Amino acid sequence: MCATSPRSSIPEALAVSPVTVDLVLANGWVVTCDPRHTTIRNGALAIDNGTIAAVGTVEEIGRNYSGRHVVELSDHLLLPGLINAHTHAAMTCFRGLADDLPLQEWLHQVIFPAEGMHVNPELVTHGTLLAAAEMLTNGVTTVCDSYFFEQYAAQAFLESGMRAVLAQGILDLPTPDQPDPTRMRDHAREFLDRFPSSEGRLRPSLFCHAPYTCSPDTMQWVKDLCRQHGMIFQTHLSETAAEVRELQQRYGERPALFLRRLGILDQATLCAHGVWLDAEEIQCLAEHCVALVHTPESNMKLASGIAPLPTILAAGIRVGLGTDGCASNNDLDLFAEMGMAARCHKAFSGDPVVVSAREVLHMATLNGARALGWDSEIGSLEVGKQADIVAIDLRKPHLTPLYDPISHLVYAASGSDVTHVWVAGQEVVIGGELMTVDVRAVMAEVRQLAAVIGAGQTR
Amino acid sequence: MCATSPRSSIPEALAVSPVTVDLVLANGWVVTCDPRHTTIRNGALAIDNGTIAAVGTVEEIGRNYSGRHVVELSDHLLLPGLINAHTHAAMTCFRGLADDLPLQEWLHQVIFPAEGMHVNPELVTHGTLLAAAEMLTNGVTTVCDSYFFEQYAAQAFLESGMRAVLAQGILDLPTPDQPDPTRMRDHAREFLDRFPSSEGRLRPSLFCHAPYTCSPDTMQWVKDLCRQHGMIFQTHLSETAAEVRELQQRYGERPALFLRRLGILDQATLCAHGVWLDAEEIQCLAEHCVALVHTPESNMKLASGIAPLPTILAAGIRVGLGTDGCASNNDLDLFAEMGMAARCHKAFSGDPVVVSAREVLHMATLNGARALGWDSEIGSLEVGKQADIVAIDLRKPHLTPLYDPISHLVYAASGSDVTHVWVAGQEVVIGGELMTVDVRAVMAEVRQLAAVIGAGQTR
Repeated sequence: MCATSPRSSIPEALAVSPVTVDLVLANGWVVTCDPRHTTIRNGALAIDNGTIAAVGTVEEIGRNYSGRHVVELSDHLLLPGLINAHTHAAMTCFRGLADDLPLQEWLHQVIFPAEGMHVNPELVTHGTLLAAAEMLTNGVTTVCDSYFFEQYAAQAFLESGMRAVLAQGILDLPTPDQPDPTRMRDHAREFLDRFPSSEGRLRPSLFCHAPYTCSPDTMQWVKDLCRQHGMIFQTHLSETAAEVRELQQRYGERPALFLRRLGILDQATLCAHGVWLDAEEIQCLAEHCVALVHTPESNMKLASGIAPLPTILAAGIRVGLGTDGCASNNDLDLFAEMGMAARCHKAFSGDPVVVSAREVLHMATLNGARALGWDSEIGSLEVGKQADIVAIDLRKPHLTPLYDPISHLVYAASGSDVTHVWVAGQEVVIGGELMTVDVRAVMAEVRQLAAVIGAGQTR
Repeated sequence: MCATSPRSSIPEALAVSPVTVDLVLANGWVVTCDPRHTTIRNGALAIDNGTIAAVGTVEEIGRNYSGRHVVELSDHLLLPGLINAHTHAAMTCFRGLADDLPLQEWLHQVIFPAEGMHVNPELVTHGTLLAAAEMLTNGVTTVCDSYFFEQYAAQAFLESGMRAVLAQGILDLPTPDQPDPTRMRDHAREFLDRFPSSEGRLRPSLFCHAPYTCSPDTMQWVKDLCRQHGMIFQTHLSETAAEVRELQQRYGERPALFLRRLGILDQATLCAHGVWLDAEEIQCLAEHCVALVHTPESNMKLASGIAPLPTILAAGIRVGLGTDGCASNNDLDLFAEMGMAARCHKAFSGDPVVVSAREVLHMATLNGARALGWDSEIGSLEVGKQADIVAIDLRKPHLTPLYDPISHLVYAASGSDVTHVWVAGQEVVIGGELMTVDVRAVMAEVRQLAAVIGAGQTR
């Protein structure tokens, strides 16, 4: 089950005199999420200048590194910061506004009117800060977010200390931040021009809402702009059976094949959902190296369906895991999402072996990073990567006993077990408390916004 | 969405001079789980002699009752203690021992050998105490438990302060506590003879493992004994498609119809799982007033399938919610189980309206109590019922904002949000800490047992 870290991760030359580093995390059970699923009992990490200098047993690290700051983490698991590869953060403001309704009623009588009436820079700022607080305290260090007024989301994530891909939402319809669809291209360019400097912690992106809300021309234009800027292009793909039928009627093709014809499919294209992909589409996405984000809780709650994940994984597609927005989840806990991903496909397929805990944990870490094109820097605890690290306290009844740390992370842990979080070596959560954002103040702001939003509801 | 409490819950005669009661819980948002789903914002409860004396707004309770002890709970939800209607508590010792294996391999190469080798009074005592600690701190106040050496489970639950139905497991096969199946009837009688006195907090029961592991004769004998003692009779029913086929081959009938022919179906029969019930069987169970326990997380993880819950609920069957044992869940968090129940049927049926948050919350409270035949005393916050009450702290990012408390309980909360728990008016959890059991000592005991169990595994 466990393996010691490869010796090669500690340069031999250092074995004589210890090297001083910024930080040593000592004595945790390290779940590296490297490609070989290496775990190290009584492990340690040496961190310097925001990156991982070494991973090994506590003896190996102790022999070779001396930390200016040392955090003792016995009785803790250490894992890479989780990656929420698809959400709409500011929708925390609509969390639980409506549930258990027919999809069209939920969308057209609740969510769209609420967004049209209430989404503005203030809501995006406070809603995104609330989302960042929820995610960081639950062990998510990187998010791939898309919404309106996304420049305000960027500022909020910058302030929170999270790492983020930030995508401005694009539709050929009036949106809360651009009532005139003919100005959408200027709007997209302005988002990129004003994107904040963040020493690499934030990356811009553009998100065409869906093939049924964006014209072929718009999608191709946006993809071209993404190519010019070296950004990932995103879209929702095959979330519901109804949209697949609609697209087939309009263009005579299923969605993935339609996107291929537009020349949009490549390794820098990331599609969310993929619930109704058929075998030919999965093959097409695999051949074009497109990445997917699996969002089971949202797809289930909205009765959209269950993505054919075992087939998607077997095709070798890079798959990340996402919570989707809070209107349809209703939280941003990626541990809960992992538990759902590991369970629902077993029930759907009747096969208890599909979508193992190891595969799911990789979706939330290394493969999420690969889906975002960011795996050279994040997604696993390996030498040279950014020190985005999460610690979980094992001294809880529901995590006792422990036979297999990966089983616990997927089938028993929850975000509330997170005690420490580091992003690029900076401690942003200590003892479960967020250091970067005044969480009480943010909750108070969102409650005030919600009082207005709730008053507009007739339920 | 919210309604004030019926005035009739506060006797008019008391309106003149306040009555002194043991305890007043003030200023919480009270989710009563009464049959009308009443919730009371700025609510309060008056508790005396272990029972609920009054429920109402904080003004109504303040006018009529004076508490010797008052707990201020603004920013909290108050709800009835949750009811875990099906588990095998001591299996906490096997939590995460093996996952993601084919069912027969998991059962016959891991779980059954581990049980045969390690289940003894010591394991049942410590494993059950660990389960009680996990459940109480997660807001479960009543459990319906079945396992071997169940008299030791009874002592553990008694010590923990939980309320419990305790069922000795019966098989026509050698078991860890009775290697000689011909002595099983004496064994069952001895369990009942030695059942501890508990002032009504513990109730005995018998659990025939399944129609495919107990002979018709055994099942009828056990049901007769249950009738003599006024106890509920329990069995696993239609958990897997394979067992349904096996039973049909052996007896020529599907399981529910077979049990009807044995004369076992009545309102004091409680069946767990019901995954593969067909329409005729559901009708049969409804006509005989049989109760069911839904266990979606376990059924999904083992790839057993998804019970036809919308049809079962439409037939008017009393349905409780259960976690099943930790070998197949892998935790005992009934909040997670509620979230799964509310989501999985929407995905399976393609209908986002089925199995609403309100229905699911009732499964975990009032309908769970009805399934156990205990609803005259527990399951809702109503006058005259036992004061089994849970408080949840709303001052968390993932519970902000709040439009509908029932939505949050099912779709966003987790067991870790529980701050206070009372059983029969006794405070057993304060600030998330269990008062009745030395949780650190219990975890240490279980870790020692697990070191031996894990050493016996070849994985």
